[in-house]
Amino acid sequence: MTSLPANKALLRVLRGDSLQPPPVWLMRQAGRYLPEYRALRSKASGFLDFCYTPELAVEATLQPIRRFGLDAAILFSDILVVADALGAGVAFREGEGPVLEPVTGPGDIDRLDSSRVAERLAPVYETVRAVRALLPPTTALIGFAGAPWTVAAYMVEGRTSRDFFEARRWALGNPESFRQLVDRLVEGTVAHLCAQLDAGADCLQLFESWAGALNPATRRLWSIEPIRRVIEGVRRKHPGALITVFPRGAGVETGLYARETGASAIGIDTTTPLTLPGLPKKTVLQGNLDPAILVVGGDLLDESVAAMIRDMQGRPYIVNLGHGVVPETPPEHVGRLVELVRRNGGG
Amino acid sequence: MTSLPANKALLRVLRGDSLQPPPVWLMRQAGRYLPEYRALRSKASGFLDFCYTPELAVEATLQPIRRFGLDAAILFSDILVVADALGAGVAFREGEGPVLEPVTGPGDIDRLDSSRVAERLAPVYETVRAVRALLPPTTALIGFAGAPWTVAAYMVEGRTSRDFFEARRWALGNPESFRQLVDRLVEGTVAHLCAQLDAGADCLQLFESWAGALNPATRRLWSIEPIRRVIEGVRRKHPGALITVFPRGAGVETGLYARETGASAIGIDTTTPLTLPGLPKKTVLQGNLDPAILVVGGDLLDESVAAMIRDMQGRPYIVNLGHGVVPETPPEHVGRLVELVRRNGGG
Repeated sequence: MTSLPANKALLRVLRGDSLQPPPVWLMRQAGRYLPEYRALRSKASGFLDFCYTPELAVEATLQPIRRFGLDAAILFSDILVVADALGAGVAFREGEGPVLEPVTGPGDIDRLDSSRVAERLAPVYETVRAVRALLPPTTALIGFAGAPWTVAAYMVEGRTSRDFFEARRWALGNPESFRQLVDRLVEGTVAHLCAQLDAGADCLQLFESWAGALNPATRRLWSIEPIRRVIEGVRRKHPGALITVFPRGAGVETGLYARETGASAIGIDTTTPLTLPGLPKKTVLQGNLDPAILVVGGDLLDESVAAMIRDMQGRPYIVNLGHGVVPETPPEHVGRLVELVRRNGGG
Repeated sequence: MTSLPANKALLRVLRGDSLQPPPVWLMRQAGRYLPEYRALRSKASGFLDFCYTPELAVEATLQPIRRFGLDAAILFSDILVVADALGAGVAFREGEGPVLEPVTGPGDIDRLDSSRVAERLAPVYETVRAVRALLPPTTALIGFAGAPWTVAAYMVEGRTSRDFFEARRWALGNPESFRQLVDRLVEGTVAHLCAQLDAGADCLQLFESWAGALNPATRRLWSIEPIRRVIEGVRRKHPGALITVFPRGAGVETGLYARETGASAIGIDTTTPLTLPGLPKKTVLQGNLDPAILVVGGDLLDESVAAMIRDMQGRPYIVNLGHGVVPETPPEHVGRLVELVRRNGGG
């Protein structure tokens, strides 16, 4: 059986079909909540080594597919690989998250080289090719990247932060030089996403994890517009590329990402109702079960999934969480979620 | 000259008047960005000692009024004093924020005593009385508390957290026992707010700082409904009490707080446009300048303030930030903000 995109439920919905049952995959579906992942993870020293070692990344990508039969695999990687490929010196410290050499001014930006991103990330595309060859023909493969603002915020801050204040101050106070950083990221992100499609990814997701740190004016300038440029850049090489945007924390302005970026679909976060006002009925939505509900399980999980599917009936919709799977999640609850989707969604 | 509430611009707007210029005050207007605050702060060992020592708390409350002539003073205190008065053992560690003895189950809740909150917080009301006597007659005095969900989240987590996952898990997985905790907090918060009004506060603000950690279902149950009960409880003793609710991160659901809690006004966070859809024109709004703009200053500050005032023209509106003043803020930028409000708003 050949792998025709038309057979893949996720791609049909991303093109606007409403399916019963809807396709289901989960952000961070490969990860620490799975014992087989923890065993695999112990084989590499650093987290980036793990991402850059195809045999390990391939296996991590496939683990949740084997266990749960989800409708899509998402490449096992990280949103900071583009920063790393630009030369930002990314490292992951146990229990502390990512640490980068902070970008503190124009001189640091000049040293970032966006022309070699795809070359430096070659092992990632090797992973994509290998996964592609191993996936069942009905399972879609999702490539991804961080949106430019989110990656820029990490690069300026040098680490995670509650409010990414230094990045916001720079973006507001010196927009000319901040634009240089965002431009490098737009270029590097387009290259990285195109290379994933070239290697066999069926569709893409852009994670704007820190959309909530922006105000309405900076959102247009540093989030909406760079995402629009990334999508436009990818489609110049891959016309019609299917790209989901996940603007976490954008709140009232979530709809702007649907209307102004060219996104194929919008991921809705946990805080925002799936029935948010101001979106056309034809907008493809993805989300947004609370990851804490997946931890609790039981009747709460059953009822929450049934309600989501009921609310989205007749709309193009992809079941997912409103944020990533957390390590405390019992794997059997993910199995139950998939079973519920297939049962409820089947009518 | 007696202190007639009718002379206070803030109170007139909270009752629905649209004023030119609009009143202005700032969340965390007393704090580390002021050199006189840092000098004062060094006189007490712990942060709670500082809050509980009337001569220090009075002085901290008054410092920004003297320097900037703001339209309102907000009591210098902390949202965790109610948790402390319930017996949660709150401490503040330098550079780490609050640390509490975590509430981990029903046994811990049983030990919390909401009947003695006002007695234990007597020094806070002494501060309110002293500030009241020292304020100019046109300057309003704002009392405040954390909303029950936000304080509960700190109590369960035992510290600050990015996503307050333990609190969410408890609230979702064992709502019966979580309700006990919220009930104690509703009682303690009503007592604390009433005591502030009794001591001379003109109006109140409830800080729901972690509204963004909730999903739509838990928002109704654990944020909207407890806030509604707090407001109802306060007004049983103080009919017509003016109470602003600040639901930070509520996004698309910000309007629910206007429609369903009985709030006199809604504080809008930095992420949300002041012109958010779904609010009646008569809703009193407060906010929402990005604190990073106040740090940057210059033309950006001038233009942002002018735009806010223009957008809110003809509506009952209170100038404020969308989050607290940050320590990096140059005090002269706050002075400039007040000058701009008085000048633009007067035109």
